[in-house]
Formats: sequence, structure tokens, C-alpha cells
Amino acid sequence: LAHRLDGIPPTIFTTMSALATRTQSVNLGQGFPDVDGPPEVIARAVHALESGANQYAPGPGIPALRQAVAAHQLRHYGIELDPDSQVVVTTGCTEGIAAALLGLVNPGDEVIVLEPYYDSYVAMIQMAGGVRRPVTLRGPDFRLDPDELRAAVTPRTRFVLLNTPHNPTGTVLTREELQAVADLALEHDLVVITDEVYEHLVYDESEHVPISTLPGMFERTLTLSSAGKSYSFTGWKVGWATGPAELVGAVLAAKQWLTFTSGSPLQPAVAHALDEAPDFPTALAAELRAKRDRLCTGLALVGLDVRVPEGTYFATTDISSLGWANSTEFCLALPDRAGVVAIPTQGFYDSDAGMHLVRWAFCKDMDVIEEGIRRLA
Amino acid sequence: LAHRLDGIPPTIFTTMSALATRTQSVNLGQGFPDVDGPPEVIARAVHALESGANQYAPGPGIPALRQAVAAHQLRHYGIELDPDSQVVVTTGCTEGIAAALLGLVNPGDEVIVLEPYYDSYVAMIQMAGGVRRPVTLRGPDFRLDPDELRAAVTPRTRFVLLNTPHNPTGTVLTREELQAVADLALEHDLVVITDEVYEHLVYDESEHVPISTLPGMFERTLTLSSAGKSYSFTGWKVGWATGPAELVGAVLAAKQWLTFTSGSPLQPAVAHALDEAPDFPTALAAELRAKRDRLCTGLALVGLDVRVPEGTYFATTDISSLGWANSTEFCLALPDRAGVVAIPTQGFYDSDAGMHLVRWAFCKDMDVIEEGIRRLA
Ligand SMILES: CSCCC(=O)C(=O)O
Ligand SMILES: CSCCC(=O)C(=O)O
Repeated sequence: LAHRLDGIPPTIFTTMSALATRTQSVNLGQGFPDVDGPPEVIARAVHALESGANQYAPGPGIPALRQAVAAHQLRHYGIELDPDSQVVVTTGCTEGIAAALLGLVNPGDEVIVLEPYYDSYVAMIQMAGGVRRPVTLRGPDFRLDPDELRAAVTPRTRFVLLNTPHNPTGTVLTREELQAVADLALEHDLVVITDEVYEHLVYDESEHVPISTLPGMFERTLTLSSAGKSYSFTGWKVGWATGPAELVGAVLAAKQWLTFTSGSPLQPAVAHALDEAPDFPTALAAELRAKRDRLCTGLALVGLDVRVPEGTYFATTDISSLGWANSTEFCLALPDRAGVVAIPTQGFYDSDAGMHLVRWAFCKDMDVIEEGIRRLA
Repeated sequence: LAHRLDGIPPTIFTTMSALATRTQSVNLGQGFPDVDGPPEVIARAVHALESGANQYAPGPGIPALRQAVAAHQLRHYGIELDPDSQVVVTTGCTEGIAAALLGLVNPGDEVIVLEPYYDSYVAMIQMAGGVRRPVTLRGPDFRLDPDELRAAVTPRTRFVLLNTPHNPTGTVLTREELQAVADLALEHDLVVITDEVYEHLVYDESEHVPISTLPGMFERTLTLSSAGKSYSFTGWKVGWATGPAELVGAVLAAKQWLTFTSGSPLQPAVAHALDEAPDFPTALAAELRAKRDRLCTGLALVGLDVRVPEGTYFATTDISSLGWANSTEFCLALPDRAGVVAIPTQGFYDSDAGMHLVRWAFCKDMDVIEEGIRRLA
């Protein structure tokens, strides 16, 4: 193995989903829904397969999808994009992250990242030779502390890798928290790379604010998203990068060598979803809100301290209330003890601030959530 | 842009296909067929889409596809593989190359590569911090000279990145040529990474020999291939890496951060293709042979020196017979002058040994080939 992978374990999601299959557990670990997205979108993919969309799509993505992504950004956020130079299609947001970091980060560059962090961030920052500077979300509600953020900046800082709505905590960064990031980025000439795949999955009074819409930020923000979570097709792996042409161009420059292109018959279907099923994500969020509430109520009833998330697929619990101290041990014992799989948040921290935290997915059938709770009880 | 991308231009295939679209030229550039693969394979993808194969596939690929790949290697080459540890599914062979190089090559490691080289090899070797050592295929038939190969080895050499059948030249390496590579690999403890996507597209008496089948080579060979060329679905981007568990594990270790997984509804269809349509690639090769002959005859008639390829989608011509000296200039002038797009082989050389070489694709409808020839005439 090359040294750039030293100390990087297999992704926890592969490990835990394999464990769920092996132990026939209720999988409240990896974030994927039990129910697929709109039938009309599947029908559009079928049509694409049957009408010849089976050869290489253009490297930047098919024009219809780039236009649909631009229209989506305009409709939801008032962001105007040139689909030819400011939108690039990626193999899910994961490839967007990989290509952004390989395309932009030089060895030694420091990248500020919210802690707990999604595991691919840390792996790809290291693979790009970058140095991560975690800023820990604090308190029971996982909030961003502007002073801690500011303290993470050094003369070598060049990027902030943001994620809102935030996986694993479910925090939706407020306009004030994002303004603190923006102020810092403007002051220190930082580029913000922001993973917004849960952009439509926010609950109650929370509102998703793309940081690129804050004054002065468009020019220095690379925004990544995908159809996987918004349209319940996590296996299609059709995502996109948007922003100023130079940043999007860096993603394309790296991505062309990572996969060249992908998902030719799925790209027209995702374009159709964005153009013709714009309300699906909102309806999905309403369903997820009910599932969130069912899961959180159930987890509280079995004696766990629960943080009710503002967005995403995930709720977080403190397991110390059950007398457990180590979330990895807890999650490895859980399949045998209860037939349930969850994700130890601990693995997403440099420090042991997440030692007692466990993440539970509620993007599942209500029956599956109920069965999970029953087993836990 | 990060320095790892310094001096790397956009892939020639994107550039030339965009040029073909803009100028409404006959596209004999990028290698993708005009006709899709087996309808029953499309039907299997439709079934997958409609029966719920739309969420994340396991990171290493769905078990059915890993088993089908193992069965394919056994049926064709007598290679026995454990589908769980010795097969990993990738987003086409391109991701296999990227993940292999990022997963295995350390900065300063030297990688021997056949020249002319496929453009992603050079880009990814550089992105991994490796140093390429080109060994030029020589003579009108682009043969490997064992002495030049041997001369390319230094104390820092760790890898040979092979490609047979070879793009862009159409050379199919003989058992003797491969034995020369194997001898060197065994003597100097080198790992061979071999891109064999055209494994089934060989003509006349040529035979594709996987270098991993030579004595002592399995342990040190990582073999990459895909369904794109064998089954005429270049846009599906479903490929695989096979070999000893440590090398395949290195691909997985890097790949999990590049895309995690991809093409969930396409993976069962490719498994079906390998299992149930094993003769399709041979029939395709027979068709391609006729197209090759038509193209090569036509190119000769318009006054070009043609090298008739032993395999792949591509024929190579020497343009000096037409009084041209620079293949890039030739290929940039061709759309306006003749309404045809071809690929300048020059871009795949460090030296100017390919200055006068142009690559033409014959994986197109016979009508398209005829029209291309007519326009060239
Ligand atoms: C790419 S697998 C992980 C899916 C996901 O987003 C999660 O479970 O956090
Ligand atoms: C990945 S685009 C290039 C397709 C191809 O294999 C070729 O034209 O050489």
C-alpha cells in the first residue's frame, strides 16, 4: 500500500453494512433509504437505456443534466450558473470531494474541517498530502464555535471543507455560523469546499443556507451535491460540482483521470428528476421528519440521550446514559446483543470527544425503525 | 490547480469529441461504438432499476458481479480467483488505473509504461508522484524491444504499467514480449499493472495472453478490465480489478475514497452479460474485424500508410505519405478540411516519435466508416 493510505482504515460504512448482512441485523448504520425515488425517474432511466444512452457521456456531464443543475441552483437559491463552465457532473458527491481535494490541495496545505467529519474527507485530505485542522462542533447540539474556528487558522490554511446539513450530527449550520466561516474565508483568502448533499433534508424551522450565497462568497466556494439523498437513489452515484469556473475546472481536471465519466443512462434520468420532480425532495423531507421523530422517541424510551437532528438522515445518541463508555465497543456488540447495526461516531473524531456518541439512520421504512427500536428495547 | 496537475492538459478524447460535435464531423476519434450491446443485457439493467437495485452497492461490488468476473477469468484463462478477496468492481477501467496508482505508487517510484501511452496513465502516474519511464514500441508494427525494456529499469523502478491489446497502436503483445516483461518483473521484483480492456477484441491469428498467466506472475500482477469494450456499453463504466488479495486490496483501499461505489443498477446487468452472453465479445470481434478491414483499405486508398491492428478499436496511419509532418496540426485541420475527427497519436509520446501518427477508430457503423472515408477522399 502506498504511504498516502497509511493508517486509513476501510470505510466504516462498508464494515458495518457487511456486519449487518452477516448478522441479519436491522441496519440503522449506513445511510441509504429502503424505498427508491420517483417511479417516473426510474422510467426515464429505462427509456435512456432503451434508446441508446449507453456510451460515454461527455466528461463534464451531459448538457441536459448540467442545465438542470444550473436551473435547480437558480430556483432554490437564486444562484446563476453557466452550465458549460460552472457545472461538472461527478460520480456522486464522493468523487466530487476526491476530485476537489486532488485538484486543489497541495502537500502541506491546511484544510479546516468540522469534527466529527465524514470519513472520506480525512482520507482524501491525507491522500492529497493536506493537513486537516479539525474544528469540533460543541455541546449537545453540535454547534460551531466561531472562536474555535478562528483559532484553527494558521499561515498554511488554504481551505475550509464544510458540510451542511452535517453528517453525522444532523446540525444545519445557521446563517450566523456560516457568516463566521465566510468572514474567515474572506479575511484569510480561503477557498470553501462545501458538501451539501442533504440540502433538501431539513426539518422544522431549520433552513439550508448555501454558503456560496453569502456576500463575496460565490467566487471562493465550490459546492458539491448529488441526487442520491434528494431523490433516494444513493446507488446511482450521480453528483455535481458547481461554482466559479476555476474551481469547477479543477474538479474536472482531476475527475477526468479518476473515472473520466460515469452513469450515462442515469444522467438523463437525474436531469428529469431535477426538472420535472422538483417537489419530491420536500415531500421526502416531510416523511423523514416523521421517521426521525419515531426513531428519536424510541431511542429515548430505551434510555439513550438523543439529539434530535435539524437535517440529514441521522440522529445521535449519548450512550453513557446506558453505562457504556466506548461507542466502537457498543456498536460491535450491538448486532449480537440486539440484532441492530449503528455507526460509532467516535471514528469521525481525532480526539475522544465522540467516544460516547452513536449515529442512527432513520431513512428506513417505518417498520424497520420500529423493529430496530423493539430489538433495542 | 494543485501542482500534481501541472502541465497536464484536458484529455484529448473530451477535446476531440467536443470538436466533432461542434463541427458535425464524422467522429473516428474517441473509441465508443455506435451500436449498443446485447438487448438482453439492457433488459437486465431495466429489471434491476425496476426491482430496487438503486441504493449503494457494496464497496467491492455486488457479489453476483464479483462471482461472474471470477467465472470469466476461469473460463477464458484458467485463472482461479476468490471473488471475495481477489475481485473488486471499479467505475470502469479508468478508476481501476487511478485507484491502482494512488493505492500503490509512492512519490519517486518509477513506473515503466509502453509508449505511446493512454493519456490517463501519464496523468495518474504524475498525480501519484511517480516517475514514468516510457519504453517506445518500435517499427511499423509497434513491437516491444526487450533490450529497451531492460534499459528502462533503474533501482527506483517498482511497476510496469502494461496495456495489451494496446491502445492506441492496436498491438497485441505476444507471449514472447510478455515473457520479457515477466522476466524483468521477476528479476527486479516489480509489480505489473495491466490494462486489458480490449482482451476480447483481437483479430486473425492474434491471441490475447494475460500476463498474470505466465509462470510466477499471478502473485505480482494486478489485472484491470471492464465491460465497456467487450459488451459495447462504454457509458456504463463498470470495470474490475483482479489478482492477489494484497494488490486488489490496494485498489479497494484507494477506490473507496474516490467514488465509494457506482452503477448499482448496472452491476447486475454486467454480471448477467458475463454469465449469460459469454460469446457476445467474440461475435463483436468478428464484426469489428470487417470494419477494421474496411477502414484500413479506405485509409490506404486515400494515400495514408496504414498499420493494420491486431486488436482494439483503432488503426494507426503515418501521415507523412500525404506530406504532413505534425499529427496535432493534421487532426485540428481535419474537421474543417474534411469533416472528420481522428486522434493525434503524438500526444501519447514524450519524444516526437509519434509526430507523424494518427489514430482512427473503427468501432463505428459501417456506414459511418464509409462516410468518413468518402469525406477523406
Ligand atoms: C458512501 S456510504 C455512506 C453513506 C452515508 O452517507 C452515510 O451513511 O453517512
Ligand atoms: C475514456 S475516453 C477514451 C475512450 C478510449 O478508450 C479511446 O478512445 O482511447
